[in-house]
Amino acid sequence: MPLTIQDIQLARTRITPYIIQTPLLRLQNLDAYLGCKVYAKAECMQVTGAYKLRGAMNKILMMTEKELSCGVLAASSGNHGRALAYVAKMLGIKAAIVMPDTSPEIKSNAIRALGAEVVFCETSERFRVAERLQKETGAVMIPPFNDDNIMAGQGTVGLEILEQCPQLNTVIVPVSGGGLIGGVSTAIKALSPSTKVYGAEPAVLPKYSRSLEAGEPVTVPQQTTIADALVAQIPGKICFPYVQANTDGFAAVEEEYILKGMKLLLTEGKLLAEPSSCIGIGAVLQGLIPVKETDEVCFVISGGNVGLEQLKMLEKIIV
Amino acid sequence: MPLTIQDIQLARTRITPYIIQTPLLRLQNLDAYLGCKVYAKAECMQVTGAYKLRGAMNKILMMTEKELSCGVLAASSGNHGRALAYVAKMLGIKAAIVMPDTSPEIKSNAIRALGAEVVFCETSERFRVAERLQKETGAVMIPPFNDDNIMAGQGTVGLEILEQCPQLNTVIVPVSGGGLIGGVSTAIKALSPSTKVYGAEPAVLPKYSRSLEAGEPVTVPQQTTIADALVAQIPGKICFPYVQANTDGFAAVEEEYILKGMKLLLTEGKLLAEPSSCIGIGAVLQGLIPVKETDEVCFVISGGNVGLEQLKMLEKIIV
Repeated sequence: MPLTIQDIQLARTRITPYIIQTPLLRLQNLDAYLGCKVYAKAECMQVTGAYKLRGAMNKILMMTEKELSCGVLAASSGNHGRALAYVAKMLGIKAAIVMPDTSPEIKSNAIRALGAEVVFCETSERFRVAERLQKETGAVMIPPFNDDNIMAGQGTVGLEILEQCPQLNTVIVPVSGGGLIGGVSTAIKALSPSTKVYGAEPAVLPKYSRSLEAGEPVTVPQQTTIADALVAQIPGKICFPYVQANTDGFAAVEEEYILKGMKLLLTEGKLLAEPSSCIGIGAVLQGLIPVKETDEVCFVISGGNVGLEQLKMLEKIIV
Repeated sequence: MPLTIQDIQLARTRITPYIIQTPLLRLQNLDAYLGCKVYAKAECMQVTGAYKLRGAMNKILMMTEKELSCGVLAASSGNHGRALAYVAKMLGIKAAIVMPDTSPEIKSNAIRALGAEVVFCETSERFRVAERLQKETGAVMIPPFNDDNIMAGQGTVGLEILEQCPQLNTVIVPVSGGGLIGGVSTAIKALSPSTKVYGAEPAVLPKYSRSLEAGEPVTVPQQTTIADALVAQIPGKICFPYVQANTDGFAAVEEEYILKGMKLLLTEGKLLAEPSSCIGIGAVLQGLIPVKETDEVCFVISGGNVGLEQLKMLEKIIV
């Protein structure tokens, strides 16, 4: 069943009582640095600190009590896991989260604080470990991105952006497996076809850039990146066609520029966001996305789960 | 000539083309920590990083070219100086700023970057040094707070708060000499008399708490505080009667609670603000201002000029 704008609108009705409609901020102090009129959709201010709650909430609210009786399970670099742990706690069911051993402590601690179980493994092993756990426990696997109902939930970010600021002509979205950009681009192109939607992914994990060239999902080698939430090696097979149909371009952003984006957003924009969420700003700083002074550009700031100790890495970065 | 709501409304017309109408953010993720519905007026996102631009802009835009021909001058702990330097650059006139030698580097550097001269001295000497400089150069002294036109400019924060969120029942304002709270409380009590206005000042410099008890401005001994923008030893004589007439209470906040407020705003609210600006949150955390779950409370986040190296002091703070 393909994802439609109606699915996204229904998702919004379903999840609205439980999420924050995050602010869309006009950040004039960043205009001179980025060469356009800068807006930020502050999903770092979402409950659980990231947009991931939207998809997980939508998916789980569509399931029956019986389906959920053995609990829920996910492989996650952190934010999807925290979202799942939050929904599980709200509904009084069990949750287990399989995380890469490279995930920052702030993310695993927050998941444990919500009462969920955390299982660490190597990044590339996380889906296999989660499948084994599923067989053992009977818990329902909640995919982090490769699912229509997850995408429908994430797409509500796009609906809100268009309502909060209809004059935007460009939206830039951080990309891992494609759940967020799949949903957001589907919503935006359905309601405002002339608005451009760009994706930004780490240069060391250029799965969408490569796959869009190839015309089909291509796997890239696992690499570590400072963008710890963007570690997918291959586009979600369900996400890919939506991204292919509804986006206007992709940027593969160098690690240094991801950190420049984070530092700029924090020091001049006064917003704390995790490195992954600042990759769109990094893409423009690196000159990878064409913007001009009159463009009204919204950066989706997808999450803010970063520990203070992680801010040390910004000290030597020059914007 | 006493300050009226009309002066504040005129100030708004005068300065609106040159300042940002900063967002008033609903920060649900802080509600459980503070025991009320939390809002933040994000003046940390103002041009120059602090509300001070409003007062300085209003004051200088009321002066003649002739008056301004020898430039402008101020004694400032940093943010007023930066505001002045910004206005001076905009108008093509000279500016000199006398700063306490305890001011953070980020503040003096930003002032120099705008082309103004910086003169350092001991905190308690700053007004004397500025007077001497004024005699030598003929520059116009722009007071940081003790002035009706400065207060009128700062009061525009209050007008915006009421327009952006009319249902608020409490506003909490960081206090040094009283320019901000003098203007904000005058605006709020004129238009919404039932809204409560509280001031928050460092416990080590309790000049308003003492002066309100005494019924007249009282000088307290100079002390250093982590709230480097709140170092006034005595209420402004012009500000004091407005504060006396229009506020509902004062909190004298411990240093540790100022830092707890800053850490909470950054890690859970995702907003970067300087310590001084977080003193209202600290006041509620310390139990000094009575708020209840149904209260809609706006914290004026007065500025965001804090260096990343200063964030180290938050690492050992427990909220």
